[in-house]
Amino acid sequence: MRIALGVSYNGQAYNGWQSQPNGNTVQDKLEAALGRFATQGVSTLCAGRTDAGVHGLMQVVHFDTALQRPETAWVRGTNTFLPPDIAVQWARAVPDAFHSRACATARRYAYVLLQSPVRPSVEVGRVGWVFNPLDGEAMRQAASCLIGEHDFTSFRASACQALTPVKTLHRIDITRRAVASAQHREMECCYWRFEFEGNAFLHHMVRNIMGCLVYIGQGSHPPEWMAQVLAARSRDAAAPTFAPHGLYFLGPVYDPQWQLPDRVPGFDWLP
Amino acid sequence: MRIALGVSYNGQAYNGWQSQPNGNTVQDKLEAALGRFATQGVSTLCAGRTDAGVHGLMQVVHFDTALQRPETAWVRGTNTFLPPDIAVQWARAVPDAFHSRACATARRYAYVLLQSPVRPSVEVGRVGWVFNPLDGEAMRQAASCLIGEHDFTSFRASACQALTPVKTLHRIDITRRAVASAQHREMECCYWRFEFEGNAFLHHMVRNIMGCLVYIGQGSHPPEWMAQVLAARSRDAAAPTFAPHGLYFLGPVYDPQWQLPDRVPGFDWLP
Repeated sequence: MRIALGVSYNGQAYNGWQSQPNGNTVQDKLEAALGRFATQGVSTLCAGRTDAGVHGLMQVVHFDTALQRPETAWVRGTNTFLPPDIAVQWARAVPDAFHSRACATARRYAYVLLQSPVRPSVEVGRVGWVFNPLDGEAMRQAASCLIGEHDFTSFRASACQALTPVKTLHRIDITRRAVASAQHREMECCYWRFEFEGNAFLHHMVRNIMGCLVYIGQGSHPPEWMAQVLAARSRDAAAPTFAPHGLYFLGPVYDPQWQLPDRVPGFDWLP
Repeated sequence: MRIALGVSYNGQAYNGWQSQPNGNTVQDKLEAALGRFATQGVSTLCAGRTDAGVHGLMQVVHFDTALQRPETAWVRGTNTFLPPDIAVQWARAVPDAFHSRACATARRYAYVLLQSPVRPSVEVGRVGWVFNPLDGEAMRQAASCLIGEHDFTSFRASACQALTPVKTLHRIDITRRAVASAQHREMECCYWRFEFEGNAFLHHMVRNIMGCLVYIGQGSHPPEWMAQVLAARSRDAAAPTFAPHGLYFLGPVYDPQWQLPDRVPGFDWLP
């Protein structure tokens, strides 16, 4: 039978999602825990790989097993063997036609950015950081030219294994949360939250777009520069890849026919 | 001259605030960084010590130094030598009459609690956790009997060095943030936020009160039990000390005459 799992993790301690020989990835930890619970080898496929340092709020994986266990047993049993920064949130028996990657109709990411004269401390590893104030309107204007179906080669890592650089971005929402009193101007700081939804994403695509948005937000380039970067279809045209720490994979979107939970715990209170 | 600093830190990696021979405390890291910047030994006094694993959003310390440097140089210079989970937020030259501990008229703490069938993962080390749903009204009713001046011996750690167990609690605010959709009842979860303000706190006082509030919230004891625990003036009467992970020292409150910043970065977006 086929089982789907929702998995949350803090990516700080891991070399990303994808299994590696040294074993220090989220997939390695998950498969080791599943293997101990099932007392047999378990291989998983995920909806969207994440880089080293990137967090997952609701990664979805599936695997096949002969083991018959209640769904809650898969959750509690696997969590017993997982490290404290990874947890299975739910388990569902699914039809064999379900495939965590192929059935995902969209994927969502959030990037959380601290704008402050002082670097992060309490929230270290969980937010990106910029020193200079950002112009939200300039970033929104720049982001709008990316919406729709485009060749995103300019935002694609050289190691990207996608079959095509043509993807469809549904939306980029940019919101600001002020946290400062106006009393001390030199300490004014805020959090920016960037939310991305698209049918699929190339390797480093969100972080490369983030790099360009921050350049534009800081005034290093005008908003129109984003369209030029997109049109160039060259990685050299874009800004450097932005830091992984503020990036959260919110999870895939599936057709309601699969009856999978669509809650993303922690999503609302991301700074 | 006397300098006051506002300091934020993630307490996960440290054996609390107070300096220890092994050197792995927040005070040790701060004094080492100040010493490197000032190229001379610096001894600090803080407004409120924190236990191992407890975070500080705006700890305030003071120290005396012969070194003349701009306030911004104290911030940037010290941060250069601090580990990434500790950061100086501001520095101010203050009159010699200022004392970070003695001048604090009140102190504020927040406790963040995840209520979920599944333990924390992305937010590991930053929140406490309860499996069972809590009754907010019962906890608020229980908390109300603690407000005012009382002998808090029942909530005092044996190692506490305070001169008197009589303290004044100004308020305990208990609020709930729902994060679940109603779609899947077994996954319903939320965050509880407990905010404490008092003139001073005994060692483990917030965590011991939290232990009792959770007992009452889960229905193990009625709300009236809290008054009995308080009246007993015995540590044996109360619940076990609750976990440190969800506790944040929000910082001290000072008279406006000292002209110190009163912003607490990150306070608004605590889950």
